[in-house]
Order: sequence, then structure tokens, then C-alpha cells
Amino acid sequence: MSARRLAIALVHHPVLDKQGAIVTSALTNLDVHDLARSARTYGCTDYFVVHPIDAQRELAKRIVDHWTDGSSAKRIPDRKDALAVVRPVSRLADAIAALGADVELWVTAARDIGTPVSFAEARARLATAGPPVLIVFGTGWGLAPEIVERATIVLEPIRGAGAWNHLSVRAACAIALDRLVGASSR
Amino acid sequence: MSARRLAIALVHHPVLDKQGAIVTSALTNLDVHDLARSARTYGCTDYFVVHPIDAQRELAKRIVDHWTDGSSAKRIPDRKDALAVVRPVSRLADAIAALGADVELWVTAARDIGTPVSFAEARARLATAGPPVLIVFGTGWGLAPEIVERATIVLEPIRGAGAWNHLSVRAACAIALDRLVGASSR
Repeated sequence: MSARRLAIALVHHPVLDKQGAIVTSALTNLDVHDLARSARTYGCTDYFVVHPIDAQRELAKRIVDHWTDGSSAKRIPDRKDALAVVRPVSRLADAIAALGADVELWVTAARDIGTPVSFAEARARLATAGPPVLIVFGTGWGLAPEIVERATIVLEPIRGAGAWNHLSVRAACAIALDRLVGASSR
Repeated sequence: MSARRLAIALVHHPVLDKQGAIVTSALTNLDVHDLARSARTYGCTDYFVVHPIDAQRELAKRIVDHWTDGSSAKRIPDRKDALAVVRPVSRLADAIAALGADVELWVTAARDIGTPVSFAEARARLATAGPPVLIVFGTGWGLAPEIVERATIVLEPIRGAGAWNHLSVRAACAIALDRLVGASSR
């Protein structure tokens, strides 16, 4: 359980492509669902879907509406609780503005970038009162340097049983939230 | 790191629907990818995609082939390593046969069923030499009772920051593997 307001963001621009160029990625339906369900499970107040293209934010909004007011709201009522945390925004700055100027940006990376903070230390920080925390995840080949450079902390890469750790963002977000605020001890 | 051979299975039949009836669920493309990537990250030797319908197993095989031999194998070579652990089988019994008669079935559930074993205890068991372990995940509204009744252990439900825990199977599998064999301590 976090002692601070906790939120997540999934960034579709600016992110890297395989060659390291700055690109905009397409919205993925299951990213909206899965990250919302993980956010709701771990007590996040907001899940910002960051996309600069109006039609893509509108698509995110239609997915949310379908599950909160549309025909699927009756079929799977639990999903409404999850999707209620989704906030489509055009830039990461909008998410920061919504949380307040003192918000801390925490970024995750599959590879070592910057000086990483362990999940154990980050978990301890979240258990102590302080400003809101926005955990920022990237699509494509990861967050652009301009976002990483603004981060208060860079979380250590998630390691499994070896060096290979090419997790989906849906899996990486779930694991990161569980390590940071999950109820079960190891 | 597991001291035992560790594998996962995703069951599409027999699983429950919302009303508790036994049904067969459809294959989801991202389940194949995400669970394979999580399995590979956490050192699982096999990811059994359990589906009784030939055309659905053939679809799983085509997804794997596309990413191991097809055009996408060149575009994202890492994915090949993940999808190499995917084994489409028609029944859970086929997965059990592949791992040996002494395999332990461990099942997960979002709600309390049976007498649950904590992740901490299960993690300790995996760190000790013993027979192979097959962690079985269900689609739809969860595994049918006939599978749960055969299980050696039922893992405790994953709890986040409260009672709400309607995670996707992609998130639940990732979190379960991280709690059981992940490298980072809390």
C-alpha cells in the first residue's frame, strides 16, 4: 500500500523505435484494459494514456465508454471499476499538471539507463509520506531520452531467472506495481 | 531461480464462464506472446497452450512460426527466444505427460478456492530440489473444478492494495512468476 498518491502513464510519444529514432506508437486495446486493471488492483488513482493524436485519444475514450456505459458494462461490471482510472492526455506534461508540480516521475527500463534505484528502496520511499508519484512506462523500444532525463528516479530493470527480460509492457507494469506496493511478502 | 523444472500452462478448456458453466474459450494472440515472454524471462522450459480445437492449436502454431521463421523473426529477433517455449497441446494431460508423471500441478485463482499456499512458501518449495512444477492458469472465469481438484497446491490469490484484484491473465501470470522465482527482493 502506497502512502503517497500513485499514478501510472503509458507513453506513445516520444518513444524510441528499434533504430533509436523518436516515433509515435499506435494505441493497443489490451494495453488500455490490462494496465487499467493492474492500476486499479494496486490502488493507483490514475492511468494516463499519453497520445498526441486526437483520433487515438478518442479511441481510448471509446474503449472506456464501451466498458463503463456501453453494452459490455453489464456483461463484465468489474471492468468499469478498472477503466474508470483511465485518462487520455496528449502530452506527459498534462499528466504532470493533473498531479501537481511536485510530482515525482519514476521511469522503468528494460535495460540499464542512468543510475538505477532498486525496487526495495523505491518500495520504502512509497511507504513514506511525500509528493505524488507517476510511474512512466514506454511503448515501442522504450521512453525517449527527454523523458528519462526528467525522471526523479530510474527503477532497476526487472530481472527474472537470467539476462533475458523482454517482457511485454503489460507484464512489466504488473510486476513493477506488485514489487512496489503488492501486499504479499516474498 | 527455480531449483526445479518449471513450466506454465494456459487452459482454454475446461474453464468456467460467468455463470459457472464449463466452456471453451478462444485463443488470444497477446496471451501467446505475453505468457511466452514472461515464461522465458523467468526460466520456464515450456508454456503449454491447452486448446481442444485443432484449428485453434494450428493458429497458435502459426503465430509461433511467424515469429520464429516468418518475416517478424528478422524484425524482432528477441521474440523468437520467447516463442520457442510455446507448446500447443489438446489437453492438460498432454502437458502432464510431457513433464513426467511426478509433476506437481500448481493452480492460481483470483478468489479463495481450497486451502491456499502463500507465495512465500511456494517460493521456498521451488528453491528446493524436487519434481517438475506446472503452474496452471485459466482463461474465462477461471479453471474448472476438475483441474483445481487435481492440483498439488492452490496458490493464494494475488492481492494488491485492497480487495479488488481483477487482473488480466497476462498480468497475473507475470506477477505469479515474479513472486515465485523473480530475482529482486522486496
